[in-house]
Amino acid sequence: MMITRGGAKAAKSLLMAAGPRLFSTVRTVSSHEALSASHILKPGVTSAWIWTRAPTIGGMRFASTITLGEKTPMKEEDANQKKTENESTGGDAAGGNNKGDKGIASYWGVEPNKITKEDGSEWKWNCFRPWETYKADITIDLKKHHVPTTFLDRIAYWTVKSLRWPTDLFFQRRYGCRAMMLETVAAVPGMVGGMLLHCKSLRRFEQSGGWIKALLEEAENERMHLMTFMEVAKPKWYERALVITVQGVFFNAYFLGYLISPKFAHRMVGYLEEEAIHSYTEFLKELDKGNIENVPAPAIAIDYWRLPADATLRDVVMVVRADEAHHRDVNHFASDIHYQGRELKEAPAPIGYH
Amino acid sequence: MMITRGGAKAAKSLLMAAGPRLFSTVRTVSSHEALSASHILKPGVTSAWIWTRAPTIGGMRFASTITLGEKTPMKEEDANQKKTENESTGGDAAGGNNKGDKGIASYWGVEPNKITKEDGSEWKWNCFRPWETYKADITIDLKKHHVPTTFLDRIAYWTVKSLRWPTDLFFQRRYGCRAMMLETVAAVPGMVGGMLLHCKSLRRFEQSGGWIKALLEEAENERMHLMTFMEVAKPKWYERALVITVQGVFFNAYFLGYLISPKFAHRMVGYLEEEAIHSYTEFLKELDKGNIENVPAPAIAIDYWRLPADATLRDVVMVVRADEAHHRDVNHFASDIHYQGRELKEAPAPIGYH
Repeated sequence: MMITRGGAKAAKSLLMAAGPRLFSTVRTVSSHEALSASHILKPGVTSAWIWTRAPTIGGMRFASTITLGEKTPMKEEDANQKKTENESTGGDAAGGNNKGDKGIASYWGVEPNKITKEDGSEWKWNCFRPWETYKADITIDLKKHHVPTTFLDRIAYWTVKSLRWPTDLFFQRRYGCRAMMLETVAAVPGMVGGMLLHCKSLRRFEQSGGWIKALLEEAENERMHLMTFMEVAKPKWYERALVITVQGVFFNAYFLGYLISPKFAHRMVGYLEEEAIHSYTEFLKELDKGNIENVPAPAIAIDYWRLPADATLRDVVMVVRADEAHHRDVNHFASDIHYQGRELKEAPAPIGYH
Repeated sequence: MMITRGGAKAAKSLLMAAGPRLFSTVRTVSSHEALSASHILKPGVTSAWIWTRAPTIGGMRFASTITLGEKTPMKEEDANQKKTENESTGGDAAGGNNKGDKGIASYWGVEPNKITKEDGSEWKWNCFRPWETYKADITIDLKKHHVPTTFLDRIAYWTVKSLRWPTDLFFQRRYGCRAMMLETVAAVPGMVGGMLLHCKSLRRFEQSGGWIKALLEEAENERMHLMTFMEVAKPKWYERALVITVQGVFFNAYFLGYLISPKFAHRMVGYLEEEAIHSYTEFLKELDKGNIENVPAPAIAIDYWRLPADATLRDVVMVVRADEAHHRDVNHFASDIHYQGRELKEAPAPIGYH
């Protein structure tokens, strides 16, 4: 049975608006559970949040709370079975399976807490929360450059330099499009590196020194750059095709490269970030000349980087460039650690700043 | 030139203790930069932190601050070159390359901020920070079970059940060892799933709904279980060999499985977590019977789960079991979303609670 997207979206909007009231009719919650929900709050942060949370009752552990559309017959039967199962095991009948005629989609539905901004409007973003936003440090030194000293350094440097040529040919001065497409590439190394370090930590029973988190943060930060730039430059069909192809090639190449020589991999990413800084500087020049329209900053960027409400694309490029400078530092540092014959875990990772 | 580990460790300890004072002699920092360092602080959290930060001056962007051992000749030359490079470009000479005779190891050294606990002792952990700790909700329903309804569900269920047999044979009632080794497996699915969703978000230019973060959080949480249990049960050489083998097989199998059928992959993880809950319940019984010694809780567990200072292994197993119950819910939910023909991004992810 096909569920129309329009109908599903409408139902979802209704649920998101009606959420807390809906939940309370579906299940009675003990005061203990309501208090338990407060474990979700970060320690000591309750009073310090900029954003306030709308009340939800035991919102995190509701049985059947996500309505994604019409209830499917299979799910109803499934829900009935689970209700019986729960009753027979005498477990906590996290009920509400069959109550109400809202289309109950999952017995396992776990609804995240609602968060509202200071002005009362709802926090729109699922992929980051208010406490994960930050103000970028735009005074970071943009001119720092790692002078290649070893043979591997030179290979890394000239690989990156030679990749610049076809890239410049393809994009010309279309820096918005360039940013959007290259961020799909930039978000790969952090994820690959983080994952490989994660697996190493597991199989060797070793601490990570915080580097898994540092690299995954980098990947997520680059992905946020993408989420921002795709509001500004919409990809065409052939650009999408190119991105898919490049991802297939680059992901595997970087994966192998990291397995063979993490020192080379990090060095190359350091140089890639140096090029990114240069490209964003050129982007700013084009904006200042008026060749690229200095549109208002996308809402996601204003929230993520805590920009003023009247921020423009130029402000966004400034903070993104600062992020790239930080990634440059982290990756050159990681490579240096390897160059000294050490493992990353031996030096505490620079986490908490994107 | 080989750097002795002992010497390096000693140097590192010295630096960690001397850190802030060392930094201030190496570089003069403008008051602007010192204030800029505050961007590292989470918004509105400054006054609310349980742990306080030791003062560092512009600590995040220091040029050459990580001493990992004796200075290598190559690095000195490298540092000199960079100093010249910086001077010629007129960039911010994030100096200190050659000053002092502390072995300067990296021009790119990025030192994380020092954090101290309420009692003045230093925060020991690099892989998590105070604001990432939490109190687990041990009232979570442990008895919930997903009754297999479809053919795929049954395959997932019986695969997990059949894997239980050799596992029980190998571990018998050695639940400490079982926990330690199986957490090396449990930490894989979240990372694989998170990574695949990350790549999908990039190449399709789509929002993630928070699911990348939810799955990566799960993986990191399972890894923290491992970091805890390896303090209690030390792996023997053949157990290490087994873990390496199993990782090689399971990682690839789950990767393929997730590509082919994420609904099946999540369902299987849901069932694996149900089995984990059962195993931890058995672990508790063995502890209560006295067959396994109820040792004091490892320090990492006390800090991570905010347990009381006199917590024991039993308390640790309780909170770990609660975590597994939450992962069960998240994965069954994720599978349900797929069963309804939806993508995960269409339902906000349950993040922020492990």
